[in-house]
Amino acid sequence: MTTMPQTDRYVFDFAEGNKDLKDLLGGKGANLAEMTRLGLPVPPGFTIATTACRTYLSTGDAPTALSQEIGEHLNRLEQVIGRKLGDPDDPLLVSVRSGGKFSMPGMMETILDIGLNDQSVQGLAKRSGDDHFAWDSYRRLLQMYARTVLEVPDELLQAALSPGYAEWDVSTPEQLPAAAIERACGALQEVIADYSGRPFPQDPLEQLDLAVRAVFRSWVTPRATLYRHQEHIPDDLGTAVNVMAMVFGNRGPDSGTGVAFTRDPGSGEPGVYGDYLQDAQGEDVVSGVRNTVPLAELESIDPRSYAQLLTAMATLEHHYRDLCDIEFTIEHGRLWILQTRVGKRTAAAAFRIAVQLVDEGVITLDDALLRVTGDQLGRLMFPRFDSRHDVPVIARGIGASPGAAVGVAAFDSVAAQRLASSGRNVILIRRETSPDDLPGMVASTGILTTRGGKTSHAAVVARGMGKTCVCGVDSLVVDPVARRAVAPGEVVIEEGDLLSLDGLTGFVYRGDVPVVASPVVEYFEGRVALADADDLVRAVDRVLRHADVRRTLGVHANADTPGDAQRARRFGAEGIGLCRTEHMFLGDRRRLVERLILAEGPTEQEAAFDELLPLQRADFVGIFQAMDGLPVTVRLIDPPLHEFLPDFTELSVQVALDRAAGQPDEEAERLLAAVRRTHESNPMLGLRGVRLGIAIPGLFAMQTRAIAEAAAIVTAEGGTVRPEIMVPLVASEQEMRLVRHEIESVLAKVAEETGGAVPARIGTMIEVPRAALQAGPIARCADFFSFGTNDLTQLTWAFSRDDVEASFFPRYLDAGVFPVSPFESLDRTGVGRLVRLAVEEGRKANPDLLIGVCGEHGGDPDSIDFFAAAGLDYVSCSPFRIPVARLEAGRAASAGTTTSDTR
Amino acid sequence: MTTMPQTDRYVFDFAEGNKDLKDLLGGKGANLAEMTRLGLPVPPGFTIATTACRTYLSTGDAPTALSQEIGEHLNRLEQVIGRKLGDPDDPLLVSVRSGGKFSMPGMMETILDIGLNDQSVQGLAKRSGDDHFAWDSYRRLLQMYARTVLEVPDELLQAALSPGYAEWDVSTPEQLPAAAIERACGALQEVIADYSGRPFPQDPLEQLDLAVRAVFRSWVTPRATLYRHQEHIPDDLGTAVNVMAMVFGNRGPDSGTGVAFTRDPGSGEPGVYGDYLQDAQGEDVVSGVRNTVPLAELESIDPRSYAQLLTAMATLEHHYRDLCDIEFTIEHGRLWILQTRVGKRTAAAAFRIAVQLVDEGVITLDDALLRVTGDQLGRLMFPRFDSRHDVPVIARGIGASPGAAVGVAAFDSVAAQRLASSGRNVILIRRETSPDDLPGMVASTGILTTRGGKTSHAAVVARGMGKTCVCGVDSLVVDPVARRAVAPGEVVIEEGDLLSLDGLTGFVYRGDVPVVASPVVEYFEGRVALADADDLVRAVDRVLRHADVRRTLGVHANADTPGDAQRARRFGAEGIGLCRTEHMFLGDRRRLVERLILAEGPTEQEAAFDELLPLQRADFVGIFQAMDGLPVTVRLIDPPLHEFLPDFTELSVQVALDRAAGQPDEEAERLLAAVRRTHESNPMLGLRGVRLGIAIPGLFAMQTRAIAEAAAIVTAEGGTVRPEIMVPLVASEQEMRLVRHEIESVLAKVAEETGGAVPARIGTMIEVPRAALQAGPIARCADFFSFGTNDLTQLTWAFSRDDVEASFFPRYLDAGVFPVSPFESLDRTGVGRLVRLAVEEGRKANPDLLIGVCGEHGGDPDSIDFFAAAGLDYVSCSPFRIPVARLEAGRAASAGTTTSDTR
Repeated sequence: MTTMPQTDRYVFDFAEGNKDLKDLLGGKGANLAEMTRLGLPVPPGFTIATTACRTYLSTGDAPTALSQEIGEHLNRLEQVIGRKLGDPDDPLLVSVRSGGKFSMPGMMETILDIGLNDQSVQGLAKRSGDDHFAWDSYRRLLQMYARTVLEVPDELLQAALSPGYAEWDVSTPEQLPAAAIERACGALQEVIADYSGRPFPQDPLEQLDLAVRAVFRSWVTPRATLYRHQEHIPDDLGTAVNVMAMVFGNRGPDSGTGVAFTRDPGSGEPGVYGDYLQDAQGEDVVSGVRNTVPLAELESIDPRSYAQLLTAMATLEHHYRDLCDIEFTIEHGRLWILQTRVGKRTAAAAFRIAVQLVDEGVITLDDALLRVTGDQLGRLMFPRFDSRHDVPVIARGIGASPGAAVGVAAFDSVAAQRLASSGRNVILIRRETSPDDLPGMVASTGILTTRGGKTSHAAVVARGMGKTCVCGVDSLVVDPVARRAVAPGEVVIEEGDLLSLDGLTGFVYRGDVPVVASPVVEYFEGRVALADADDLVRAVDRVLRHADVRRTLGVHANADTPGDAQRARRFGAEGIGLCRTEHMFLGDRRRLVERLILAEGPTEQEAAFDELLPLQRADFVGIFQAMDGLPVTVRLIDPPLHEFLPDFTELSVQVALDRAAGQPDEEAERLLAAVRRTHESNPMLGLRGVRLGIAIPGLFAMQTRAIAEAAAIVTAEGGTVRPEIMVPLVASEQEMRLVRHEIESVLAKVAEETGGAVPARIGTMIEVPRAALQAGPIARCADFFSFGTNDLTQLTWAFSRDDVEASFFPRYLDAGVFPVSPFESLDRTGVGRLVRLAVEEGRKANPDLLIGVCGEHGGDPDSIDFFAAAGLDYVSCSPFRIPVARLEAGRAASAGTTTSDTR
Repeated sequence: MTTMPQTDRYVFDFAEGNKDLKDLLGGKGANLAEMTRLGLPVPPGFTIATTACRTYLSTGDAPTALSQEIGEHLNRLEQVIGRKLGDPDDPLLVSVRSGGKFSMPGMMETILDIGLNDQSVQGLAKRSGDDHFAWDSYRRLLQMYARTVLEVPDELLQAALSPGYAEWDVSTPEQLPAAAIERACGALQEVIADYSGRPFPQDPLEQLDLAVRAVFRSWVTPRATLYRHQEHIPDDLGTAVNVMAMVFGNRGPDSGTGVAFTRDPGSGEPGVYGDYLQDAQGEDVVSGVRNTVPLAELESIDPRSYAQLLTAMATLEHHYRDLCDIEFTIEHGRLWILQTRVGKRTAAAAFRIAVQLVDEGVITLDDALLRVTGDQLGRLMFPRFDSRHDVPVIARGIGASPGAAVGVAAFDSVAAQRLASSGRNVILIRRETSPDDLPGMVASTGILTTRGGKTSHAAVVARGMGKTCVCGVDSLVVDPVARRAVAPGEVVIEEGDLLSLDGLTGFVYRGDVPVVASPVVEYFEGRVALADADDLVRAVDRVLRHADVRRTLGVHANADTPGDAQRARRFGAEGIGLCRTEHMFLGDRRRLVERLILAEGPTEQEAAFDELLPLQRADFVGIFQAMDGLPVTVRLIDPPLHEFLPDFTELSVQVALDRAAGQPDEEAERLLAAVRRTHESNPMLGLRGVRLGIAIPGLFAMQTRAIAEAAAIVTAEGGTVRPEIMVPLVASEQEMRLVRHEIESVLAKVAEETGGAVPARIGTMIEVPRAALQAGPIARCADFFSFGTNDLTQLTWAFSRDDVEASFFPRYLDAGVFPVSPFESLDRTGVGRLVRLAVEEGRKANPDLLIGVCGEHGGDPDSIDFFAAAGLDYVSCSPFRIPVARLEAGRAASAGTTTSDTR
């Protein structure tokens, strides 16, 4: 969970904390404290710690000491300001804002202007000489109280506000004259009393107490919970609550409110970025009702405040040593900083800013490594839409699976399959998807849904398939029967119309947006030289080179062909960690496997092996040549052989139809008999891997011979070959002994025939739970372990990935069973425990044991950190993930050497 | 593996050891030492320890100190006897016999008469005055040397011996006159020289050395290895070698050899049992060439030796406190005891003897418990063929899967299915079976093969299916094309002929043998009162009652119907540990599940639930009534719902044919769409168990409501209901929390409706590896764990039982990957490690946690011991296995309180 300073207090003055107390004070509270300590103009106030929220959530009530502590801090605040909460003549007003450890923008509650009631609103009006301001402030309080504390539906509140709109020809309440707002306040009070059975509390302390509890509760609303699950934020952190003296940007033209960034969060360029809105409160900026002006214009509006703001921005960036994002308010020409945090940024900005700060001498290269993530690098490696296009955006949803997809619209699976089979790229459009839509999803390039978010069926399945997906495009109205959709502005999309989907931003375009390759990939692929590349590529390259210097984890590739091997090498792979030999039995060669299965007796089997041997050997020659000097881990055949035969159901139907037509097909009947004989009810748990090697004599020997002969050929050409032979699905020491013995004797035989031994390591996948539990004995007869975390996850959880991602993972993600699919990021407590156990016991039994991972988790940023900590020697991943893995391995090694935090 | 006294010696005189040194001296050597110490007439000699064998097997050579140690002990032996090995005038002869810790009858080698050569045979003839004896002893040595040391094929040896047969009209070599035997010895020496390229060694020390090595090697012959795997004897024990001065039973009518039992090993009756053969050596008894006489006749042949033997038998039984089996030889009227051991016995004899010895005051009831096994009790519970029948035995094989099967012969799968579908019981007869024969095996009652043993495909699959199987009936000649088999004596079996198979004894009968129920079961079922039962039933009852007194492990039953529950109770079940609710959805109710799956929207789903609820409730009422006062663990639905739908392939074929015929069936098409939608590639790892409960809202609630309402009904009737609700397939704490919350709220609702809460425990299966790895967190929200060791084994090994038992388990058993299928006996190192870990961490997190097991291992004798040691509270097994489990639980508790050993 989270460590936290031991304390018996729940409330802390802004002047007491600092930025490192985020666990206790939340991000906002810690940063307010830090700014107060820096002497920046922060309105005075105090923070109620996350510990109070946690007590509230677990016991249903706030800690008993809380209200007394709040009272004491409130007294102190009143003394500092010189006004009292609820004073009928000159009231102190405060805001109550949520603030967890991690930012959850828009998810949690805020209540402003606490302290106003039927009397003090009059006092405020008199003191400020501004009736409109006073009544509008009261209106804001009543409205936020109703919504947040009582959860009054919005339409009831609008009904109370809107009667004046027509009369005054306005569209928002603050545009009403003071008297009309006063009437609206009365109407709001009636709604509150009707809805809750109790009048609006006139006691400001009661207002404050109820507001604090409402903020606590907002932590567990469904949308906040969902957001946390999506962002991997633990549910048990709780939120802090910040109580701050109100300052007002809506006091006339010499007041206003704005947002500032110390660098451009989009591009990373240095400079002054942000927006300003004159005569407005913070929520007016967010609501977007009125148009902001660029921050630079503040210089002409209020040069003194502008200069103060620039100074504060410089102070903050220097202090936080990073891009800061700042909220501020100007009240009658006086600048107040209301909030700051290290600002979110795009992937490109992250790399540019990190390298800029290194150049400016603000941070080290180690720090820079921790300022960027593998996820960000991964995003920079997708092809993207060319920004110089004029194809219109017609809608926007949630970017749920990245990529840039262009294709023709289809409104159901059948249409998608038909269009795809005619050679078109397809965008499948559905309200939401279900397992019925799988064939259509498989046939499509991109998927668009109008409902659901990042854990919806469509999102989860699309990510699993690596397809582009945009979810929750709720402005699009889909009519699947009429086969069309309508976007805002009566833009009609019919079946066959061209669309473009940006899976990162969620933008949907009508038409064909040109796609450009990632400049980062162009550089990796060697198509652009570093000298010719832009500053982003140079920044990536610089950080990545430093990651290579720092990292202790090797990075290998999963590659099955010479082409893949070459590409992996260009991307920085230090070897092949997984070369799947079954991929060499596809296409034309499938019939040879068929022959092997249909073989009657050892002679026919031998003949099939004799045909396969030269083909396999040629494959290995190509790969060994491509990886000259680097290790190549070849996995002996893993899947059940019946996977190479036709589908049981399809063939059964065909044979039945042929028979019914009086034209039985002998060949098909013979094949069907073999398919039936070898059919398995759960092929994942059937005759595969090492079991094939033991059950079909000669199979592993043929593959070993192909490897050894290929190694001899490439060695004779002057190459350096470092083969590693990997046995899949081992669950026991005995299996490993049997197979190792066979492999060694084939290697010895080939060495004798070719007159020179090529040394080869012999090892095993650890992908069956029992192998992890028996790692010690197995390690005594293995030179290396490679964790097959895909299968290990399937077996440890009893999840067949093909079946579960579509059928119930969306539910599981929504219910919080796990925050992310265990196939995306390694399940550390379950599967990870087996990994740690196997590393420990394997190394103890065989100190020379080499240990890697070749499941897809090897390329997952979140998992690489775990593998480094578990003490693995290398990770192996798809060629495209190699740079991501290099970066994350560098980050894992650098973490601990610096104190930065990128979250 | 085995602990052993630390020693730097390899050879021990018989006078040095004792019966407790079986690890070091083997069973035979330890018992020879014990008898020597007791003063019984054992020929002098010494034992070469198992440690020497192990060195030989691991290094390929005997320990360097061995030959010197043998020389020293031989010198001492020569002094005691007063003759020298190889003395040309009066040679000492010795026997060399294997003897491991556990008896492996007939598996290992023996060489007699070592010390004879071309000279000493003359000396022996002169000294004994018996040319025939001397040359026949030499013939025996040459023959055994050739077979054992050189592995000369038997037909070559027979060719050397047989030329004299015709001339003298005899059929065995010892019937030849001395001169003919002398010629045969010459011929044997020629064969030896030809076959090995070296003459027969004339140096007796060389003979001895080679014989000892041959015995060492015989430990690793395929048949010895196979036997060990079948009997679960570890491969790494090695054998001891006993060198003993020869005594001769073939010295005329005042000599002979025999076997004696201190009680009848068949029935357990006290008395003198055994066989005697006058003027013969030991191997003549075994070979069965000449007919033995009952041991009692020795009284008239040689009253003095007979009396001596009876005294020795009494001494041994008293000393070993158990049935002893004794080999003896009489040489010129002098009795020699050559071997003793605690005798093997039938299951019935085991119970009778144990209780007799208690009554005789020789052993305690605790000892008696350890003298019988659950396997033996299980054997007594099978129905068996009535012994009073005259149906002829036509052949005998290996009893590979117990039971008494009667049916008509079928020679292939198709015939078996056809005959079965016409209502006949079928015996499938094959040379050997392969996965192709599975449909036929499923259709048959019994399976007979002519090849293979207990680990053959047929044996493994039949045991898995619970079918009777006799393997390796090699005297039966099967012609599958002609569809017939021929037994010895030209007995012809055609398709459709009636056969009876005894799966215990391996006997095959021509015709219909009447089957009688087990008297033990008749008593358990209450159909026979104890007073009317025979002594065997009373013995079983007495031991079982004592087991109940001793055991700490509870014994529950897996039962799904009131009938099963009642039966389980009669058999002694203390509760139901597994009531599978999916079994309540079969038959007519299948269509309701179909409706549930086809439901479009929650309303139709609700309607399906409404129909299922009263049916489930009625089921539970019946079971709760039957188990009044005892706990009933109800497992919420576990299998994927598509298991209730028609088979995908069959339905696809049907739909395709209907369409092709122009008669599409709308109902079938709709069903096919649902089958396709819900089809899973690996259903074992798919949408099942707790996942169904989370993915299909209302399903678990309906089942919980049925349980709670049934409990309320039975409670209102005055019954005592103790429901326990078990959630299957849980892999994480979160799943358990979600489901527990739902169950608790339904229970509370029903309690409110019925006006009284029935307390229910809520717990989970531990059957997914991750559940064991997360046992601590899960235990915090579970009242009990029940290990589902079937699924846990499938997932820990990645074995789909349906697929692997047929496809490669026979290979795995032969290769020694495991000695017994992990589905028969729990895999202690792999699966067992997870069990121990989950018990430990579960109990730590929740000290009140109740822990049981409900996989099939709960009824397996070998596994129950493990569960007791792991600290489980109960085992749950099928009703029929309840007595076995009670007995084994008692044995587990008694082990350690006594020192007996039944092996």
